[in-house]
Amino acid sequence: MTIIQPEQGYPIAAIATPVGVGALAVVRISGKGVFDIAQKVFRKINNPTFRFAQSKGFRAHFGTVHDSEGLIDEVVALVFRAPNSFTKEDMVELSCHGGPVVVQHLLKVLLDNGCRLAEAGEFTRRAFLNGRIDLLQAEAIGEMIHARSESAFRTAVIQMQGTLSNRLDAMRRALLCSCALLELELDFSEEEVEFQSRSQLQQELAELQQELDRLIDSYQSGRLLKEGVATVIAGKPNAGKSTLLNALLGEERSIVSHMPGTTRDYIEECFVYDKTMFRLTDTAGLREGEGDIEHQGIQRSYKKISEADLILYLLDISLNNYLDDVSQIQAFMAQYPTAHLIVIANKTDLTRESTERLQQLRAATGSDVCGIAAARGEGLESLSHLMSVIAEGLHKQQEASVLVTSLRHYEALRNASDALANAQELIESNGETELIAFELRSALNYVGEITGKVVNEEILNVIFDQFCIGK
Amino acid sequence: MTIIQPEQGYPIAAIATPVGVGALAVVRISGKGVFDIAQKVFRKINNPTFRFAQSKGFRAHFGTVHDSEGLIDEVVALVFRAPNSFTKEDMVELSCHGGPVVVQHLLKVLLDNGCRLAEAGEFTRRAFLNGRIDLLQAEAIGEMIHARSESAFRTAVIQMQGTLSNRLDAMRRALLCSCALLELELDFSEEEVEFQSRSQLQQELAELQQELDRLIDSYQSGRLLKEGVATVIAGKPNAGKSTLLNALLGEERSIVSHMPGTTRDYIEECFVYDKTMFRLTDTAGLREGEGDIEHQGIQRSYKKISEADLILYLLDISLNNYLDDVSQIQAFMAQYPTAHLIVIANKTDLTRESTERLQQLRAATGSDVCGIAAARGEGLESLSHLMSVIAEGLHKQQEASVLVTSLRHYEALRNASDALANAQELIESNGETELIAFELRSALNYVGEITGKVVNEEILNVIFDQFCIGK
Repeated sequence: MTIIQPEQGYPIAAIATPVGVGALAVVRISGKGVFDIAQKVFRKINNPTFRFAQSKGFRAHFGTVHDSEGLIDEVVALVFRAPNSFTKEDMVELSCHGGPVVVQHLLKVLLDNGCRLAEAGEFTRRAFLNGRIDLLQAEAIGEMIHARSESAFRTAVIQMQGTLSNRLDAMRRALLCSCALLELELDFSEEEVEFQSRSQLQQELAELQQELDRLIDSYQSGRLLKEGVATVIAGKPNAGKSTLLNALLGEERSIVSHMPGTTRDYIEECFVYDKTMFRLTDTAGLREGEGDIEHQGIQRSYKKISEADLILYLLDISLNNYLDDVSQIQAFMAQYPTAHLIVIANKTDLTRESTERLQQLRAATGSDVCGIAAARGEGLESLSHLMSVIAEGLHKQQEASVLVTSLRHYEALRNASDALANAQELIESNGETELIAFELRSALNYVGEITGKVVNEEILNVIFDQFCIGK
Repeated sequence: MTIIQPEQGYPIAAIATPVGVGALAVVRISGKGVFDIAQKVFRKINNPTFRFAQSKGFRAHFGTVHDSEGLIDEVVALVFRAPNSFTKEDMVELSCHGGPVVVQHLLKVLLDNGCRLAEAGEFTRRAFLNGRIDLLQAEAIGEMIHARSESAFRTAVIQMQGTLSNRLDAMRRALLCSCALLELELDFSEEEVEFQSRSQLQQELAELQQELDRLIDSYQSGRLLKEGVATVIAGKPNAGKSTLLNALLGEERSIVSHMPGTTRDYIEECFVYDKTMFRLTDTAGLREGEGDIEHQGIQRSYKKISEADLILYLLDISLNNYLDDVSQIQAFMAQYPTAHLIVIANKTDLTRESTERLQQLRAATGSDVCGIAAARGEGLESLSHLMSVIAEGLHKQQEASVLVTSLRHYEALRNASDALANAQELIESNGETELIAFELRSALNYVGEITGKVVNEEILNVIFDQFCIGK
């Protein structure tokens, strides 16, 4: 694979640590001539003759960095020499005292002396283009950084280590081999030789397809890990939906992150319980409005429910007509058979009959029923536990933790599997060798796209644009 | 100076980079046994026999970190050996892929293996206690990190470099010398020897006091740099105060930071123009209310005005009675003679007579008058420029950029100066040697407190508690 990049190796610089106040901040530079650039701004303490160009890799040097107005900071400069660096280029990491103003100055003096500001993901893109990591690993690094739950993080780490890459590479080698034999037949087509028995080829392809399909199946689990269990809170107005949402989020306030909804019709928040992430949607607009805009809101709420992995149906158990919701609950269960549903009976503290009523609800709906008093925070722990048990069940039984977590990979695998299915059909019907070879070639390409053996500049842009600057 | 710290040297760990998503995050550990702790969790790539204990300082090692559940991340481990480290203890900095979950795991595995979580400022406190930096430099590091303007940052850098420390140390040595001679006299008091002529001593003390007073004077500039120019927007309702505030902040949105007021009576925002920071207060409640709470609000607003370095008096120049405010403006000028005042004539776009009216205002008030159209953003650049010129004037003429920026230092210097004044008076009136020596000793202590030659545990706690964890 060769991609010509006009700027490949041009010295780039970026702040590599998060923005904000901290003890340390790191600016890193990579590319041709970065040692000369660092040399211009850095003075090693007690060693005026120090030269970056002569430093070994993996060596740190303590000194000061200056701009035209004077000293900027004391820094530790860590030298990496190509190819033993993150990008496989010469690199220097300058670690200064944290603080937004300090690190901005440090970056600026490097830009003033010959670096340009790195684009989002450009360091990792170089690591990929220079062959240090494949595309899967590059994406895994991005996923690690953005991981919001323990499980998503562990899955990304495994992917970064190359487990999935190795699996795909092995499949690709097997396909390449079959492909080569078929093409050899084409070269000698006048002699009608069969270099590979069709039955053996078919068996090999079937095995490869099976393996592809196992990976495709794992996407269900992978998606849950990465995006969280899509959970919708439904129920009539005043059942206490917002109170429930806040109570659940409040329990885990420190690891809650806010994801603003794209419309004002629902809000979406994430919370993590026992390593599992839930993406909670409050369908506030479900039945409350009448006008046209509200109607659109209700449409969207129903769409959210239709996409849910888990529906939390909330009702007020203290009302005498608490069984009125049973028909709605049953309708949901019939309409969305793949989603799990928990009936949450709120306000157990406001009725003396809560035990009997919960039993009746269970009998009437045939679903899991969980009694809570959201405003008092009662019953939330058992609800969260029940949710995590259900989430556990959503994960298909997976062997050895190799999961497909990305829609891009999922689609490429699906395409590859389809191509192999076509090839097998062709063999079955004594199709032409040329057509079989075409399908194999196509499967090869799809598998290669995942790890980046086959590269598409557009895909690269999509992937690396999602990275932060400095990565 | 010796302080017994029961835990001195105990291995501590902390995340050193700001919280958030970034390319890199650093966890650092310091103290006795950190090499053994790092050894337990780190595996160097391609070198299973690697031992931190045998690594030289300023060497980096690439490897992986593991916890009981598996791989956490690929990290670069940078080794510092005592005394050549930030804390003068053995240290390791582990740099991992950024991301909140990753770095939390990295910290946790170090805590699980024998480190305890560092307290706020504990690394810097150790650097101080172990004699690598003095207290002034430690405080300067904190100020650097929190600096919000170019000037505050440059001043902190100079302080970190020890310029002020050196000056104070020289003064302290001179005082020590005089003190020692006086105490020698006391030892030989029966013989009535005078080891140091009183007139010479008086001259020396006068010179030292002058130097102290120069530093004391510099606090005015230092405070402005660090806290910003205290700027109050005053004026009648509907003059456009909030519009002006927003327009000024909007110009520099990227470096605005919000400082919520302690009461609902005023809001305070910072903005930076041409390296100078202004702390803008909008006295929204100035005349608008009548009730008891509003009355308190007005009291606070007037207090804010009385503390201001700069009063921006806003009026509506498009009104026919625009000269009605002149008496109020003159009252402010008389009441707060040390503050600067700019009359801002807003809504110049709503009258055709703005030029004449501005001249009349200038004549009537005798102060700077600046015409703007806040809602359109007109005239803001010249206003900001005028403000920065006035801010420039607020800085007392300072030699060579040594500024006192901390109230703590200011007070210690004041006390030292007072002690020297007392000593001189005693000499003048032929006071007892013992009393003179007491005052010198006292001045010595005050000066020593600044750099930490004289240490008070309480002061240390106050200083280091303001640091972030990891510093």
